[in-house]
Amino acid sequence: MNERTHLCGNLTESMIGQTVQLKGWVKKRRDLGQVIFVDLRDRAGIVQVVFNVEENPEALETAEQIRNEYVIEVTGTVIKREAGTINENLATGTIEVTADHVSILNRSKGLPFMIEDDSDASEDVRLRHRYLDLRRPEMQNTMKLRHQTTKFIRDFLDEEAFLEIETPMLNKSTPEGARDYLVPSRVHPGSFYALPQSPQIFKQLLMVSGFERYFQIVRCFRDEDLRADRQPEFTQVDIETSFLGKEDLLAMMESMMTKLLKKVKGVDVEGPFPRMSYNEAMERYGSDKPDTRFEMELVELSELVQDSGFKVFSSTVENGGAVKGICVKGIADDYSRKDLDALSSVVEVYGAKGLAWLKIESETEVKGPIAKFFDETKQRALIDTFAAEAGDVLFFVADKRSVVNDSLGALRIKFAKDLNLIDYNQFNFLWVTEFPLLSYDEDADRYVAEHHPFTRPVKEDEERLTSEPENVRAEAYDLVLNGYELGGGSQRIYERELQEQMFQALGFSDEEAKEKFGFLLDAFEYGTPPHGGIALGLDRLVMILAGRDNLRDTIAFPKTASASCLMTNAPGEVDPGQLDELQLSVNVREDEQTESQASEE
Amino acid sequence: MNERTHLCGNLTESMIGQTVQLKGWVKKRRDLGQVIFVDLRDRAGIVQVVFNVEENPEALETAEQIRNEYVIEVTGTVIKREAGTINENLATGTIEVTADHVSILNRSKGLPFMIEDDSDASEDVRLRHRYLDLRRPEMQNTMKLRHQTTKFIRDFLDEEAFLEIETPMLNKSTPEGARDYLVPSRVHPGSFYALPQSPQIFKQLLMVSGFERYFQIVRCFRDEDLRADRQPEFTQVDIETSFLGKEDLLAMMESMMTKLLKKVKGVDVEGPFPRMSYNEAMERYGSDKPDTRFEMELVELSELVQDSGFKVFSSTVENGGAVKGICVKGIADDYSRKDLDALSSVVEVYGAKGLAWLKIESETEVKGPIAKFFDETKQRALIDTFAAEAGDVLFFVADKRSVVNDSLGALRIKFAKDLNLIDYNQFNFLWVTEFPLLSYDEDADRYVAEHHPFTRPVKEDEERLTSEPENVRAEAYDLVLNGYELGGGSQRIYERELQEQMFQALGFSDEEAKEKFGFLLDAFEYGTPPHGGIALGLDRLVMILAGRDNLRDTIAFPKTASASCLMTNAPGEVDPGQLDELQLSVNVREDEQTESQASEE
Repeated sequence: MNERTHLCGNLTESMIGQTVQLKGWVKKRRDLGQVIFVDLRDRAGIVQVVFNVEENPEALETAEQIRNEYVIEVTGTVIKREAGTINENLATGTIEVTADHVSILNRSKGLPFMIEDDSDASEDVRLRHRYLDLRRPEMQNTMKLRHQTTKFIRDFLDEEAFLEIETPMLNKSTPEGARDYLVPSRVHPGSFYALPQSPQIFKQLLMVSGFERYFQIVRCFRDEDLRADRQPEFTQVDIETSFLGKEDLLAMMESMMTKLLKKVKGVDVEGPFPRMSYNEAMERYGSDKPDTRFEMELVELSELVQDSGFKVFSSTVENGGAVKGICVKGIADDYSRKDLDALSSVVEVYGAKGLAWLKIESETEVKGPIAKFFDETKQRALIDTFAAEAGDVLFFVADKRSVVNDSLGALRIKFAKDLNLIDYNQFNFLWVTEFPLLSYDEDADRYVAEHHPFTRPVKEDEERLTSEPENVRAEAYDLVLNGYELGGGSQRIYERELQEQMFQALGFSDEEAKEKFGFLLDAFEYGTPPHGGIALGLDRLVMILAGRDNLRDTIAFPKTASASCLMTNAPGEVDPGQLDELQLSVNVREDEQTESQASEE
Repeated sequence: MNERTHLCGNLTESMIGQTVQLKGWVKKRRDLGQVIFVDLRDRAGIVQVVFNVEENPEALETAEQIRNEYVIEVTGTVIKREAGTINENLATGTIEVTADHVSILNRSKGLPFMIEDDSDASEDVRLRHRYLDLRRPEMQNTMKLRHQTTKFIRDFLDEEAFLEIETPMLNKSTPEGARDYLVPSRVHPGSFYALPQSPQIFKQLLMVSGFERYFQIVRCFRDEDLRADRQPEFTQVDIETSFLGKEDLLAMMESMMTKLLKKVKGVDVEGPFPRMSYNEAMERYGSDKPDTRFEMELVELSELVQDSGFKVFSSTVENGGAVKGICVKGIADDYSRKDLDALSSVVEVYGAKGLAWLKIESETEVKGPIAKFFDETKQRALIDTFAAEAGDVLFFVADKRSVVNDSLGALRIKFAKDLNLIDYNQFNFLWVTEFPLLSYDEDADRYVAEHHPFTRPVKEDEERLTSEPENVRAEAYDLVLNGYELGGGSQRIYERELQEQMFQALGFSDEEAKEKFGFLLDAFEYGTPPHGGIALGLDRLVMILAGRDNLRDTIAFPKTASASCLMTNAPGEVDPGQLDELQLSVNVREDEQTESQASEE
C-alpha cells in the first residue's frame, strides 16, 4: 500500500481498528525512548502517531531519525486513546494511530521560526520564508477563507446570470488618478503598455457590446507610495450591469454581502444597509468611510461658541471656519492634563493647529484650561449639546471645516481603539452616497474626478458641470464595512456629449480627450445602454472577514511597503541584453539610488 | 412602469396576454408605413415588436425615428402571431409584442459592419470596433461558453478540495524559455519586475507550504514573436498537487475533461484517455501533439528502400537518416503530376530537400517519376507495407529522422484538411508521455529544458543526468486534444540535490542557480513533499470547444500578431514625465523603428 487512504485531520472514532496510510509533516515529536509520539499534520489537521518498541521496533528506529517538519508516510492502525491521554485541544484528540511502517519522504533542516500562530518572528523573516509562514494554521485558514469568498461570489453572480469575462492586462497608459505601471514593448520600441488600475473602460465597452451583466475577479495595479493597507497589485471584484437602476444594483450587492457573511462567517446581517450622504458622513463621523460600530459622533458647535469669550473659536467661526467637538465618555480620571495635551499630535497630522479640551465636572460645570472662556450658560449649553456626564472629556477643533472633520474623525477612531469601544463581532455595512463629482487639485491647477471621469453626475446637477463644477454631486456609492471602504461604484455616463463635457470640466483639450479616450467616445455613438457598476476590494474584504488588520496577511505572496518581495528579491536587475532588446537604458540618479537603497533597510 | 419585466429571448407563448417591458437593441426595423416591425435584441435573444397605427399612433411616431442598434425601452402586450407570419428561425417566432409605449434610451449612428455572424468585414475592422464585433451572436456565445468552462472547472476543483490561490504578477525576471515582459520599478530605479510566464515556482512553493491542492485560473505572459495561435497574454488553468501520484492526477484530469465536455457540449467522451510515448507520437504521426481523428500514419521504409536503386533513399539510410512515407487514399486521379510536385513546398518548410511520390496503379504496380528505381518485388513490398490500393498516392521524405517526421506530419495534416477527412464532432484526447527532459540548443551551446527546469527525470534515467543528458526522459505528460496541445504537466523535483544537478545539466553556475532560484533551493530543504501538476491553456480549450480555429475569437479584447490592440492603440507613447520617474530613457534605433512601423500596416 503506498497510496494515502485518509487525511490526518479527518480521522474519527468511527475508524477505530482500521488500517490507514497517512502522509504529512511532523509538527512535533516527543521521544520517550521506548515510545515516540509524533503529531502528524496535513491540510486537514493533525493526528498523533505512536511508535512503540513493543509493537514495531523497526518503525521506532526510523522514527528516531525524524525531526520537526520532516515529510513522512505512515501506515498504522487507528486506536482509541486511553482516558488520561485524551487531548481536548485536538479535533482528533480521542484517537491515535499506532505505526506499523514509516518512510521518510523528505527531510527538513532547522526552521528559522516555529510554525505557530503566535510566532514571534518579525514580519520580515516571515516574508523571506513565506513558504514556511504559510504553513501556520492562521495563514492556511485565511487562504481557505479567501477561496471560499471568491467561490461564493462567483456562484452568486453566476446565479444572477453574470458572465465572467477577462479583460487585458497589457493596456494603453491613460493615467488619470494613480500612477500606471508601465511595460515596455519590444515589438514597438519606444512604446509602452500599462498594467490596469481597473478594467473600467473595458467593462463599460462590454456593456456597449450587450453583455448586460459582467463580472471579473481581477488583478489591478497602482504604482503608489504604499501604506499598510495598500499593495502595488491588488484584486478587485469588478461588476458592471446594463439597464439596472442604482436601487436594483445596491439591493443585489446587499444580497451578495449578507449571504456571503452567512456562508463564510455564519453571521446574520440584515439588509437593506443604511445609507448616508457624503456630507452627513463627514459632518457626523469626520470620515467618508465611517465606522458605525460605535458612536462618539462629531458635534457642531460653531453657533454655540461664536460669541464665547474664547477668541480662537469665535474668530474661526467669523472667518468662515467651523468649531466641532467629540465627547469621550468617562475618561476624565484616567487622562492627566499632560495626557490630554499630548493628543494634539493626533489632530496636527490633519493640519489642525491645536486640540482644546474640557473635563465635565458635574451636570453644570466644566473644568480645564479654556473653561474660563465659557460662562455658566455656555458651560451648561455645551454639556447639554453633548448630553455629557460627569467624568467625560470634550475635545474641540476649530479650523477650516474639512480640517475639523478629518482631525476629529481620526481622534474618534483613536479613542475607539484605545478604549476598546469596538465590538469586533459586529459587521456594520453602510452605503455612502452623493459624493462630489469633482474636486479641485491645487497642484494640477484643475479639477480631478473624485471617483473616475466616467461617473455620472446626479441628474439635477448636470447643468452645473460647466458653471459650478465643485457643486456637482456624483451618482456614486461607496460600500463601507466597519470603517473600511470595501469598494465603490456609480452609474456611468453613456452619452458622448456628456462625456465630452466631463472631459472639458477636467481640463482636457479636445485633442487630449480624443487621443486618450477617442475609442470610448466613438463607442458611445453606437447604441450604448444606460449602465453602472461597482468594484469591491477583495483583499480588504477577506482581511475584514478574517478579522485581520494587515492586507499582507490575506495575500499568499505580498509585497512590502517598498513594493519588494523579500522571498524572491523582486524587483531585480536584468540582463543588459533584455534592455537592449527593448531599446531602453537606465539612467539612475546616484543620490536617489542611495536613498532608495537606504530606505529599503 | 420603468423596470424591465422580461428578457426578449425568454418570452414564450405562456406569456400571451401579459404586459411586458423590454429593453434592448434594435436589430432590424421594417417600416411598412402604417406598421413598423422591430426585431428587438437583448442578451437572451430576439423578439419581434410591432408598432401599429391603429393600436398606438404615438408609439408608431417614435418608432419612425428608430434605426438599427438604437437602444430602446418598449412596453407592450405579448400576442400570438398569425399562422402565416410565424418565424421558425427565431426561438420566439410564434409570438410578438404589440407596443403601447416606446422610449429611445440611446441612438446609434451607421455601423461600420453588420452585427451578423457571417459578417464579411475584415478582422482589422472588427478588432478596431471590438465592442460592436462582440455583439455578434457567435461572439456572445463564445464568451458564454468561456464563462461556463471556467465555472465548471472551478466547481470541479472545489469539489476535489482544491483551493484557488492567487500568485503575484510582479515577479523577478528569470528568463528560462520564453522572453519576459519587464516592468520597471520606480521605487527601485534600475530594477525591474517581470510578468509571469507561469506561476510555476509559486505553485511549487505553495506545495512546500502544505496546501496540497492548489489551482488558479491565471493570466500569463510571453513576449514572443506571435503566431496565429499565440497571444502575448494568455490564460492558464494552473494545477498543483502534493502526495498525488501521476496516475491519480491523470485520472482526475480525465474526469474533469470528460465531465466538462458533457456539461458544455453535451458530448460523451470515454476515459481513460489513450497514451502514447513522445517517440511513438513522432514516429507514427510526425508530431508530439497528434491529431488522431484520422489515420494516414507515417510508415517506416528505411529498411525496405535501403537497397533500392534510388540513390537518394539508399544513401540517406546509409548516412544514418530515415526514409518514411504516407499513403493518401484515392487521390491519384485528382492530382496531376504538377499538383503533386508542388506539394514539395509543404515539406521544404521543415527542412526537407524534396518530396517523392508514387501513384498506385494496381495491386502490384506503381507509377511516377521514381517508379523505375523499384523492381517488381520492391513495388509490391511498398504496396503491401502501406496496404495501398489502386488510386492511392504514396509520398516519401528521406532526410534526418526529425526532418522526415516533422515534414510528413505537416503533410498529413494538410491532406486531412484539404480532403476533409476530419470529423469535427469528435473530441480525441491523448496523453503524450516520456518526453525528453533536455534538448541541446545549438545557439546557446547548452542543454535547455524541454518543459521547464523543475521537471523530474524518470526514476531509472536519473543517473544519466550528468553522463548522457540527451537520453533522460522526463516524468512529464502533455494533454493533446484534436491535434492541439491543451497543456502539459509533470512530477516535479523536490530534492535540493537533484534540482542542483538539473541546474548543472542546464549549464548554470552555482552562483547563477543561487541568484535566480536560491529561494527555491532553500525551500526544498524545509520538508518539501513529492508534488506534481499540470497547466492547461484556457484560450485554446475554449477555442476547440467553440469549434473555432483562431485564439482571438475566444478572447474579448485580443492583441494582433504584432501584439497591438487595434481598438485602444496599445501600446502607445507615454508622457516623458512617466519615464523620468522611472529613470529610463528610450534609445530607438532609427532603422528598426521604421521597420516596425512598416510591419504594422
